Amino acid sequence: MTERMATPDGVRRAAERLKGKALLTPLIENETLNEKVGGRILMKAEVLQHCGSFKFRGAYNLLSQMNPNQRKRGVLAWSSGNHAQGVALAAKLLDIPATILMPADAPALKAERVRGYGATIITYDRYSEDRETIGRTLAAERGMTLAPSYDDFDIIEGQGTLALEAACQAAELGAAFDVFITCCGGGGMTAGCATILEEVSPATQIAIAEPEGFDETWASIRDGVLRKADISRRTLCDALASPAPGELTLPIMARRVSAGASITDDEVQAAVAYAFKYLKLVVEPGGAVALAAVLTGKIPAAGRTIGLTLSGGNIDPSLYAQILSDFA
Amino acid sequence: MTERMATPDGVRRAAERLKGKALLTPLIENETLNEKVGGRILMKAEVLQHCGSFKFRGAYNLLSQMNPNQRKRGVLAWSSGNHAQGVALAAKLLDIPATILMPADAPALKAERVRGYGATIITYDRYSEDRETIGRTLAAERGMTLAPSYDDFDIIEGQGTLALEAACQAAELGAAFDVFITCCGGGGMTAGCATILEEVSPATQIAIAEPEGFDETWASIRDGVLRKADISRRTLCDALASPAPGELTLPIMARRVSAGASITDDEVQAAVAYAFKYLKLVVEPGGAVALAAVLTGKIPAAGRTIGLTLSGGNIDPSLYAQILSDFA
Repeated sequence: MTERMATPDGVRRAAERLKGKALLTPLIENETLNEKVGGRILMKAEVLQHCGSFKFRGAYNLLSQMNPNQRKRGVLAWSSGNHAQGVALAAKLLDIPATILMPADAPALKAERVRGYGATIITYDRYSEDRETIGRTLAAERGMTLAPSYDDFDIIEGQGTLALEAACQAAELGAAFDVFITCCGGGGMTAGCATILEEVSPATQIAIAEPEGFDETWASIRDGVLRKADISRRTLCDALASPAPGELTLPIMARRVSAGASITDDEVQAAVAYAFKYLKLVVEPGGAVALAAVLTGKIPAAGRTIGLTLSGGNIDPSLYAQILSDFA
Repeated sequence: MTERMATPDGVRRAAERLKGKALLTPLIENETLNEKVGGRILMKAEVLQHCGSFKFRGAYNLLSQMNPNQRKRGVLAWSSGNHAQGVALAAKLLDIPATILMPADAPALKAERVRGYGATIITYDRYSEDRETIGRTLAAERGMTLAPSYDDFDIIEGQGTLALEAACQAAELGAAFDVFITCCGGGGMTAGCATILEEVSPATQIAIAEPEGFDETWASIRDGVLRKADISRRTLCDALASPAPGELTLPIMARRVSAGASITDDEVQAAVAYAFKYLKLVVEPGGAVALAAVLTGKIPAAGRTIGLTLSGGNIDPSLYAQILSDFA
């Protein structure tokens, strides 16, 4: 028996499952940005993915492999919103009942859209309650399948499909990534991208961008010790406010990630405003940390071809208006 | 001698000139929108084009054909901003000095970017002065080549390249447009799109969307008489506030355009907010009227495949924030 792990072939199989289901999102290039940072920046615009983030990829990859009995009993997920939407839409397409555990202070737009896909929402208090305990208990009681937001090989391989696409799209432009920067929360996307890029673009360095205070993944990799975030701390990057890197994702990242950038709330807001002004893309704070890493120079871009993820665009209009007023 | 006219071959030659210069912008599809309107909506995201609008296409097509003597004397254009940016960038790439005549109340972001491309700006009062008279006088005095914003065959053919791309992209999806809706000001883009679609997609109906008060193009076509807009009137769609359809564009449109939608300021703001919320694209009011035509049902979408242009995304942050606060 072979131990299950994330593999490049697994990412390719995920890409097959996602064919005609997920959107082939564009790899965006912007002359003004290139000139500003002195490099070539190729941005995978997952804000244009179904549900406004990359999360549909992993969710559909996982749910589409559930057997008929599992499908009947339904799926449960916890998420601040993007994974929730991805699971809700994948469940809708596959006709699987979905229950989503969301923090009570999740962006209203995210909750609204989860309900719009027909899922049932249960809320919890992000600052005092442990979503994992609540979720596991509920799932066990009702026989539901868990759809983890990052610590699952099918999720990891599903998210990795975006890097497979991005590498092909870069090749079509005659380019190859010197560095690929992900927006990193629990590490599902990072681990998936690292897994496939190791095969299709072995010279590419993997870097991660994290919000200040939730930069425990790079700290864990750098220090060789598991670091945890202080989850009582607030961040604008709700999508990246995971308490710790995953048990499955961390070893993959530790082997492949060679740089990390910690991004402040001000820096990420400047990146959101930059994307508005010059890219014409709506990017949420958690989806803009990789761009911020380039704009701030925390990941040096001069003379390099950098791939990065604009990983999500689900932001409440009032926060967006505030960011434009302060930073655009 | 053959009289110059806009032709499908001209659009193809423009596409050759633009290869590697203009971006191949994505054709965006959104499940939520499709469900809402009951049809299949394929949106050509020209907000992602260089300078945030389709205008670079026509400008580069025209300027790249100037001879060395003309290039030395420079180019002059008048524009509320998008054409200005397109001309300024094309001029920069081709090393041609550019002078741009802009209304004093043009969005600050547009003026800033025109200056950023190294062009000289001269302002005029949109409500009392005639930009054409000022522009022609200046150009004649200084021997500069005029780059009209729409009434020019090279401009028309350049803009038409977006419809050539869109038709190919739709074909890759196994789709064909029943209707193609343009955001219509002076008619350069509409005439160019109509010209090429007549050849590559002859069954496609051409429809135009115009802002209320500046809906003189459809009125002219419908009534068979040249109608003019009241240019003292204010509109949020600064990009479409042209005084009348062009002399060259109107005959082409009159032959091919079979429907028109007049869009109110409220309707276009709702469309801008919709694009924020669901498409994650920043679209300016003038670039959102075609989407508004679908969202309002003014161009019926049920059971049809509709192509449309999201033609520009250059909007001041303060206006955008206001629209989100009122309509999102």
